[in-house]
Amino acid sequence: MRLSVRLLAVSATALSLAAAPALAQDARTLREAEQLRDRALHDNVAYELVEELTTRFGPRLAGSASEQASARWGADRFREMGFDNVSIEEFPLALWTRGEARVEILSPFPQPLQVVALGGSMATPAEGIEGEAAIFETYQQLLDQPEGALAGKIAVVLQDTVQAQDGRGYGATSPIRGNGPFEAAKRGAVGYVLRSLGTHDHRFAHTGATRVGEGTVPAFAMSPPDADQLRRMVAMTDQPVRMRLFSTAGFTADSHSQNVIGEVRGSGAADEVIVIGGHLDSWDLGTGAIDDGAGVAITAAALKLIEDMPRRPRRTIRVVWWGSEEVSQPSPAQGLAGARFYAQSRSGEMANHVAVSESDFGAGPIYSLNLPAGAADTDFRRAAQAVLTPLGVLFDPAPATGGGPDTGPTVAAGVPAFRLNQDGTDYFDTHHTVDDVLDRIDPEAMDQNVAAWAAFLWLLANSDVDFRTLRGTATPTN
Amino acid sequence: MRLSVRLLAVSATALSLAAAPALAQDARTLREAEQLRDRALHDNVAYELVEELTTRFGPRLAGSASEQASARWGADRFREMGFDNVSIEEFPLALWTRGEARVEILSPFPQPLQVVALGGSMATPAEGIEGEAAIFETYQQLLDQPEGALAGKIAVVLQDTVQAQDGRGYGATSPIRGNGPFEAAKRGAVGYVLRSLGTHDHRFAHTGATRVGEGTVPAFAMSPPDADQLRRMVAMTDQPVRMRLFSTAGFTADSHSQNVIGEVRGSGAADEVIVIGGHLDSWDLGTGAIDDGAGVAITAAALKLIEDMPRRPRRTIRVVWWGSEEVSQPSPAQGLAGARFYAQSRSGEMANHVAVSESDFGAGPIYSLNLPAGAADTDFRRAAQAVLTPLGVLFDPAPATGGGPDTGPTVAAGVPAFRLNQDGTDYFDTHHTVDDVLDRIDPEAMDQNVAAWAAFLWLLANSDVDFRTLRGTATPTN
Repeated sequence: MRLSVRLLAVSATALSLAAAPALAQDARTLREAEQLRDRALHDNVAYELVEELTTRFGPRLAGSASEQASARWGADRFREMGFDNVSIEEFPLALWTRGEARVEILSPFPQPLQVVALGGSMATPAEGIEGEAAIFETYQQLLDQPEGALAGKIAVVLQDTVQAQDGRGYGATSPIRGNGPFEAAKRGAVGYVLRSLGTHDHRFAHTGATRVGEGTVPAFAMSPPDADQLRRMVAMTDQPVRMRLFSTAGFTADSHSQNVIGEVRGSGAADEVIVIGGHLDSWDLGTGAIDDGAGVAITAAALKLIEDMPRRPRRTIRVVWWGSEEVSQPSPAQGLAGARFYAQSRSGEMANHVAVSESDFGAGPIYSLNLPAGAADTDFRRAAQAVLTPLGVLFDPAPATGGGPDTGPTVAAGVPAFRLNQDGTDYFDTHHTVDDVLDRIDPEAMDQNVAAWAAFLWLLANSDVDFRTLRGTATPTN
Repeated sequence: MRLSVRLLAVSATALSLAAAPALAQDARTLREAEQLRDRALHDNVAYELVEELTTRFGPRLAGSASEQASARWGADRFREMGFDNVSIEEFPLALWTRGEARVEILSPFPQPLQVVALGGSMATPAEGIEGEAAIFETYQQLLDQPEGALAGKIAVVLQDTVQAQDGRGYGATSPIRGNGPFEAAKRGAVGYVLRSLGTHDHRFAHTGATRVGEGTVPAFAMSPPDADQLRRMVAMTDQPVRMRLFSTAGFTADSHSQNVIGEVRGSGAADEVIVIGGHLDSWDLGTGAIDDGAGVAITAAALKLIEDMPRRPRRTIRVVWWGSEEVSQPSPAQGLAGARFYAQSRSGEMANHVAVSESDFGAGPIYSLNLPAGAADTDFRRAAQAVLTPLGVLFDPAPATGGGPDTGPTVAAGVPAFRLNQDGTDYFDTHHTVDDVLDRIDPEAMDQNVAAWAAFLWLLANSDVDFRTLRGTATPTN
């Protein structure tokens, strides 16, 4: 309903905005961007893509046959949508397999917990690991322990993840999952259990990558209610809590993953490349609908709308469905295998990459835009804001420091990033759980995403704004 | 908030109600009932009981060591609360064990489904069962199949459970779980998968009893989103859906379950017994917080408030924490082993049972009261309504035909039933899933339950209303 109301506002203001003399973008481009935006609100290509992807391929663990098959399907879809230079680029990947995981309380109150193994974690011995739990309310309390303090114990961290629209609560707790097992092992622990990095109180446990390598221990995430249960147990008795851990997880095969690439070639400045996309791999629990079927579908659908325009954009827009965003890997590379491969194998082309971004935060509506440093006081920014404001998208003056996880290696190579920020208030209710399925996606919010992406990309691809030059010219406003 | 507002209304009207000349109940009893009600709204005994029960014992599968231990704890609690004649009565029970369950789609779109085995269901062969799915939108479509029509196939029923405040949607679909595997087997099927009897779209699968005996097949419930996924799969392709089922479920040991019994003995008419309670056993997935830790806690807490009154009630009030409500059993007895044992071993005492009811529908607020036939036009009903109306409890003129599952055998022996109906709109979101944990309980709604039970019981136990006599005197009003 909210979007429908906004759309009325759009119709009333479109012409006046397009004619506004303060905008340096040509009036035609602005009108086209508005048309793209409004068309996207009645388009359902993104939802159809994520529906087909999640139904046909289910979970798409990096390096699995399912991820590989979904990449072939993706390339076929790119060709059907009329994209140029469609390709699949493969890279090697160690395949991690979850196997079985069980954690139970042995005493004082025997009962099973609802857990998952962390991605990249290792197996226990076949007989499992038994030990007394060393339970910490916060991760810092664990870090404050001296070496040897946890000898023979199972380290348990109950710290909760704070809910926030921009996901900063997850950012704050992610070291608990990524590094916690190493920090626990360093202090003598034989196993590790954390409260899932989730913002709900239902019995879903959240997986997610943990660091791989020598010096770690088998690691699990329990559901939030199980962490609450442990807390109550501690409050009800002075007896120590003893647990048993069991897991058969591990790296089981040499495999490969792949990036799926397609473009709408520019006319006029075809060598100036804007890279967008999402990641095609998902965790093996759900069907990767919000993480990140939504992102691959939103960005491809936006590009399809641009492909369908009567004229080509000036710059080239490239969509990449990244392979292997989720999983960690044995040293030295710890993750983002697809994004690293892309940037490393194109180190000579990075100078032609004018902007990069990713859609990897679910399917909630976009509420703000970050541009690279120096772009706030430009006509391009004003044009973008004129076109995006009716969708409920604010301009956030903080410069974008990245465009999403898979943009990391490209950004590190000097490519400017922008972000269309999605409302992730509920994202960590579902993220990395079995519940990440199509039912979690609101098609209307998805259309709003496509509208914002398509309109913004049209402006950017038809602009001569150079974020790399601007970066040096202005002080960030915050 | 709603309860707080009502409570203000109570304080303002209590005296005038108590003095109303149309009520045959003595004014003192009415005032005491109102005091009990208002005291219960600030009492937290029920929540503390269910908190301790679910934390100490976790899942309490009928016949398990955990159920048995929880019964011993329950008897101790009854004694601590000052109840009379506390006892544990054991009865034999075949122990069913879930083991492991897996269901996967083999083609056209290979992927695992989120499933649980139905309670009482049997194992597959060790290599599993493979077959083509015969998929039915409704259970009736399966029943309409002739014998042999499903030969070698896996029967799949996608029918949804309708959400309703009084749970009638569950009532309508429960034969799909109870009898479906037999009906499928009769038509040649080798396995059975139903859409969980759940009213949500999250990835929780719901267990629950299915009939045991010769002529059935291994049976599973998939989560609602998995049923949606199958439906999409069928829509996307003309290829048959092939599945593999695997389960190690079965009856594994001779064990026992037990009823836990306590009373507040009456003075004046101690031999007239009112029986209330809930069931102590739960499914093995969650910790049985709403099903039925809530009910055992609500009824015991109500009785504790009565125990704490300065005078004894006229009639005896007995609380029974029933054993083994959930599980089905091999023939001839199919279930309700605790309730059957109670009624059968007391067949000579049924004439002294003046009323029976149970709290077994979660922890939502009570919204209506059903009395036995003939009770609508009595001063007792008017008194009950006067005391319960400020809690938001309506009088439902339809006569109560039962008081909850465990009252069945007692009601069959001629004992009149009443019901304090809880709002179960969300009950089947959680019922029989791993998510049935303490986090699902709203303590405030629980207090309202205790208030309604305590006040109603006080009126009933101090009344001379005889529902057995009334039953013959009036035509049901609907």
